Amino acid sequence: MKKFLLLTFLSWILLGIATAQELKSPGGKFTMNFALQSDGSPIYTLTYKGKVVIKPSKLGLELKYEEPKMKEGAEADMKQKIANPKASLFDNFSVVDTKTSSFDESWSPVWGELKTIRNHYNEMAVTLQQKDTERRMIIRFRLFDDGLGFRYEFPSQKNLIYFVIKEERTQFAMTGDHTAIWLPGDYDTQEYDYTTSKLSEIRGLMDKAITPNASQTPFSPTGVQTSLMLKSTDGLYINIHEAALINYGCMHLNLDDQNMVFQAWLTPDANGDKGYMQAPCTSPWRTVMASDDARDIVASKMIYNLNEPNKIKETSWIKPVKYVGVWWEMITGKSTWSYTDEYPSVQLGVTDYSKAKPNGKHGATTANVKKYIDFAAQNGFGGVLVEGWNVGWEDWFGNSKDYVFDFVTPYPDFNIQELSDYAKSKGVKLIMHHESSSSVRNYERHIDTAYKFMKKYGYDAVKSGYVGNIVPRGEYHYSQWINNHYLYAIQKAAEYQIMVNAHEAVRPTGIARTYPNLIGNESARGTEYQAFGGTKANHVTILPFTRLLGGPMDYTPGIFEMDLSKVNPSNHSHVNSTLANQLALYVTMYSPLQMAADLPENYNRFPDAFQFIKDVAVDWQDSKYLEAEPGEYITVARKAKDTGKWFLGSVNGYNARTATITLDFLDAGKKYVATIYADAKDADYKTKPQAYSIRKLVVNNKSKLSQFAAPGGGFAVSFEEGDKIKK
Amino acid sequence: MKKFLLLTFLSWILLGIATAQELKSPGGKFTMNFALQSDGSPIYTLTYKGKVVIKPSKLGLELKYEEPKMKEGAEADMKQKIANPKASLFDNFSVVDTKTSSFDESWSPVWGELKTIRNHYNEMAVTLQQKDTERRMIIRFRLFDDGLGFRYEFPSQKNLIYFVIKEERTQFAMTGDHTAIWLPGDYDTQEYDYTTSKLSEIRGLMDKAITPNASQTPFSPTGVQTSLMLKSTDGLYINIHEAALINYGCMHLNLDDQNMVFQAWLTPDANGDKGYMQAPCTSPWRTVMASDDARDIVASKMIYNLNEPNKIKETSWIKPVKYVGVWWEMITGKSTWSYTDEYPSVQLGVTDYSKAKPNGKHGATTANVKKYIDFAAQNGFGGVLVEGWNVGWEDWFGNSKDYVFDFVTPYPDFNIQELSDYAKSKGVKLIMHHESSSSVRNYERHIDTAYKFMKKYGYDAVKSGYVGNIVPRGEYHYSQWINNHYLYAIQKAAEYQIMVNAHEAVRPTGIARTYPNLIGNESARGTEYQAFGGTKANHVTILPFTRLLGGPMDYTPGIFEMDLSKVNPSNHSHVNSTLANQLALYVTMYSPLQMAADLPENYNRFPDAFQFIKDVAVDWQDSKYLEAEPGEYITVARKAKDTGKWFLGSVNGYNARTATITLDFLDAGKKYVATIYADAKDADYKTKPQAYSIRKLVVNNKSKLSQFAAPGGGFAVSFEEGDKIKK
Repeated sequence: MKKFLLLTFLSWILLGIATAQELKSPGGKFTMNFALQSDGSPIYTLTYKGKVVIKPSKLGLELKYEEPKMKEGAEADMKQKIANPKASLFDNFSVVDTKTSSFDESWSPVWGELKTIRNHYNEMAVTLQQKDTERRMIIRFRLFDDGLGFRYEFPSQKNLIYFVIKEERTQFAMTGDHTAIWLPGDYDTQEYDYTTSKLSEIRGLMDKAITPNASQTPFSPTGVQTSLMLKSTDGLYINIHEAALINYGCMHLNLDDQNMVFQAWLTPDANGDKGYMQAPCTSPWRTVMASDDARDIVASKMIYNLNEPNKIKETSWIKPVKYVGVWWEMITGKSTWSYTDEYPSVQLGVTDYSKAKPNGKHGATTANVKKYIDFAAQNGFGGVLVEGWNVGWEDWFGNSKDYVFDFVTPYPDFNIQELSDYAKSKGVKLIMHHESSSSVRNYERHIDTAYKFMKKYGYDAVKSGYVGNIVPRGEYHYSQWINNHYLYAIQKAAEYQIMVNAHEAVRPTGIARTYPNLIGNESARGTEYQAFGGTKANHVTILPFTRLLGGPMDYTPGIFEMDLSKVNPSNHSHVNSTLANQLALYVTMYSPLQMAADLPENYNRFPDAFQFIKDVAVDWQDSKYLEAEPGEYITVARKAKDTGKWFLGSVNGYNARTATITLDFLDAGKKYVATIYADAKDADYKTKPQAYSIRKLVVNNKSKLSQFAAPGGGFAVSFEEGDKIKK
Repeated sequence: MKKFLLLTFLSWILLGIATAQELKSPGGKFTMNFALQSDGSPIYTLTYKGKVVIKPSKLGLELKYEEPKMKEGAEADMKQKIANPKASLFDNFSVVDTKTSSFDESWSPVWGELKTIRNHYNEMAVTLQQKDTERRMIIRFRLFDDGLGFRYEFPSQKNLIYFVIKEERTQFAMTGDHTAIWLPGDYDTQEYDYTTSKLSEIRGLMDKAITPNASQTPFSPTGVQTSLMLKSTDGLYINIHEAALINYGCMHLNLDDQNMVFQAWLTPDANGDKGYMQAPCTSPWRTVMASDDARDIVASKMIYNLNEPNKIKETSWIKPVKYVGVWWEMITGKSTWSYTDEYPSVQLGVTDYSKAKPNGKHGATTANVKKYIDFAAQNGFGGVLVEGWNVGWEDWFGNSKDYVFDFVTPYPDFNIQELSDYAKSKGVKLIMHHESSSSVRNYERHIDTAYKFMKKYGYDAVKSGYVGNIVPRGEYHYSQWINNHYLYAIQKAAEYQIMVNAHEAVRPTGIARTYPNLIGNESARGTEYQAFGGTKANHVTILPFTRLLGGPMDYTPGIFEMDLSKVNPSNHSHVNSTLANQLALYVTMYSPLQMAADLPENYNRFPDAFQFIKDVAVDWQDSKYLEAEPGEYITVARKAKDTGKWFLGSVNGYNARTATITLDFLDAGKKYVATIYADAKDADYKTKPQAYSIRKLVVNNKSKLSQFAAPGGGFAVSFEEGDKIKK
């Protein structure tokens, strides 16, 4: 501690700083220091238990200067008249006010890992004023016991009204050449495999890390995405991310790999500009979590806490659900989204599908959907997703097609009224699918009609998709303007009491706290990639440390047949996971929306294992992270919100291991029959993924569980009150 | 004639062409020759009465080649597999089919200058096939007795499905250094003054011609807009334009001023691409009109004839109208669109207007609008336009503001229910105003609600506006994608039986034939510029040769007070027109929508002159162009559709003149009292614009009228059957 303080003091002196302001977290684990350098540049540092997490790092924004334009008419001249209109917002500041405060409040999410979430932080809001422009900017710091959040605030003022961000200059200076688990920074996709390397190795590994995608725009050889997970040589787990990404470009991090300093790198618009702002307004929160225990990172609710409370008053219609769907058969190539192969391309309203020759492989037929509805009803699934039900799939992708879907016209072989009635009779909800093909204007033009159509036919949830390059052309998936679209679709859905599960949309940053009808996102590499050549076997041990911090993922687990040539002879992909690992995902990958993604016939082959998917809950009153090491393993136990039953999931990376777990999370004084779904001793994600065993034990909260997990494997446990094992 | 044929023959030989295909216009005035050069490049020529209009000029398109992208999922590979995917569409062609046909049909426009329009042409459709790609393209030529139209057609085929236009390579090779009346080519504005110069002088005059505008993107020192009016030294009037601009970028012309060859220059999107196409599809028509009599150009209906017939079945709700409006007082700066000056900026839904301090100059108050309604009712105007009625005008412009208007929330001092009731009681229709500020997504998000709001309050016409740079940023006012928006707004308006008058939208190209609810556009420099520093005094002698060929303009004539400091002491603009010229505009500037733009108090000062505006019709059964010389004068007589009354208008350029007109258009055997509103002898647009005289004569179809017109002046005549002059 002393050593650090000395270092900090020396740093301050080196940086030309006499005094600094300090903020401590409620429990005292974290200390944040803020100061101005001699040129009026704001900087901050962060320490955790006396260890430096963030070395002195600059704060501020670079603005774009544009010559004022002529105004039509003789109306008032609105030009901003300031001394130095070309000034940015990163220097020449002085502190004119500092306010500190504390906050401690618990809130109950509509759905989640916990019944109540504590939001506890100390806050420091520093008001800065720029000497020559008289512009004011507030930097608001919130220091929790799990980390730091801070943001820029631009209050209403006469010298800063409209401004354009050229680049945000926020820095995160690392203390050394940490190990990072990173995704290539990209304006259009998050669907990469993670690479684990030293920071200094990122540049050399970048090319290999950038695998092909339907839409992708990497921007720098050292550019990475958030949430970024790091581990220092002195044993700190560090996570850099953002919260409440609203009306702003998504933040990436660009590494200065000489000095190991990350700088914010926002997603630009078609002109290369990075943000159009109107005061009063704020940036999203920039977050830094740190701990010497990796479990603190995966368990953190800091990202949610930095978001605004729920804005949807009546939420009884927002319901977690397990579902099946007409999907994996298309993803694997067994069947098709499209109805016909007859035309080189189609034009909605012109192509006469009633006269088209069916290709014989269309997935979303009335008969096939009924099969899935039956399967869902028989096995207790609440929803059936159907993709490829609407006209336009023959050339939906890769053509920058503007009017690609209308979202309301079924193919001739999909009888929506009949299926709507049938689903209702079976107590199952159909789940709508709106693939926009990233033709965002076209989706917005049809969105009201499409949502009304859903309500007419009894759908109350939609999976939306943004595959391919954005139209309007030149925009990116994560720019401010397109981010505003995703929120528009969520807000409009809320008006119709519709739940949204948006794929290929910007990564979530906790906004589901504010709009809990956002019940899922993809925004990372999901199970589908197991059918496109495969995914690294430790992928699912990383996602809870990164992608899931901002919100649930529609990961679509539950694949039982790993050899996809058995589903579709021309698909030679292998699912890099054991069957037991697939079961564990229902617990480790928290989501209020959990799919059983495989084909019904594959579940019917393994009814004993399938039982876990049928049993597992989707909404929780409590969650306990028992073990966690990013890239290696995660073990979590959760208590179901409705029944109070406990479930446990553990996923494993490349190295076989035996977990030793104390079951002290179980309710004291109760006995449970634990059903353990685990890898067999010879299981391996590559060679023997379907080797599993199921055993039952009577346990209590004093019990210990020693459990083997194969490479790419894991185990899942359900706990039922009782002391008798049924045979 | 012989000389030309020899020249052509020699040209053909020089160009390596053995045979060519010829098309003649129905009356034989025009001859079009089409041929392929030895490299398979298509070329054409055009002659009028033996004089060359277009020298051998190339045809075709340059395509953009993009590497095919990976397709998500295992679905069918949609890549276009062709021998040479990088091939463009301008060479390597052979003719595989030629079809000729004739067409002669008359149609009745919903509104217009004529009761019926004859559509008479000979057609040649040449099907070209490219050797290495097997791609097919049809060039369809239609030769009328007023000129040539041709377009590219891309039939459905397996080797050309989706393609991106890098540039259209259509050429228009001039025979010499013609005189051109041109506007600087610009992706964002058409609101320039015309410059008259030799083609060779364009480059030197360009900088001066580009005057400031709210949004402007000039692209080349020799780039000009269509419709382009030219005059050759051998006395030919030539006009180059386009028709049926649908789902395509607006065409400009770029001059090779060494060879005097114009080449098409399309408006790009944010990426610089110039068109996203899906076969089957077509380009717009490229048009070349020519005549030795300038009246043939202004009278031509060729642009309309090249458009599709009316697609709106029930049209009784589409009604030409004269209107007044709360507008000129804002344009001149006497009053404001905005309600308050209190805030540096406003945010819809946040700013509380009910608590804002009014600026005391707001134009759209309930009381003021009632005054205009009263004035309209008293003087027989059917409509009252009100701008600045809805919240958001405080910072509406120049800020790239996304959510700038909601189109449905009135200012606190605008009682829409009361005004709606009041207008109805007076038999007057309120005209809606939707200023989008070019925030196109925002407008589309609100357009349904806004149109419904209009119908609720009895509005059946909307003036829409697109001031400032387009949002999405990077797009231009005339790109394919934004052009599609204008059409969307028109089509959607038709669903609600709403008429559209779109300002700052792309220039019309006759699509009002297809969508006759498009009753007006601005798309050129309108009267408002007389309040922004003035416009050239001969501007209105040019517009009918250029801008009006594609559709009516909401020019907003009728300014009686030319010294604008009398309207607003701080406005020092002068209206460069005489009062008599302003009256003539109601006849010379054909539009189904005619405003009396000046303030009621200015009309009340000149009740005798105002009588013409009250009397003049807005819909016509016949029109006779009696005199025409672009930049100098235009005289036209029109017969009202409903009453059969004749009206005559004549506008004059910079040089005083005396027109001698034979009134042989009048119905034979009838006598008329002609009321002549004319410049006084000492009138002058600059020094004495309000000097006019009104006299009455009894005339018949043998009468001749000798009439003085001052610089920037003109005259207007109404003819009423009878032989007695009332005092």
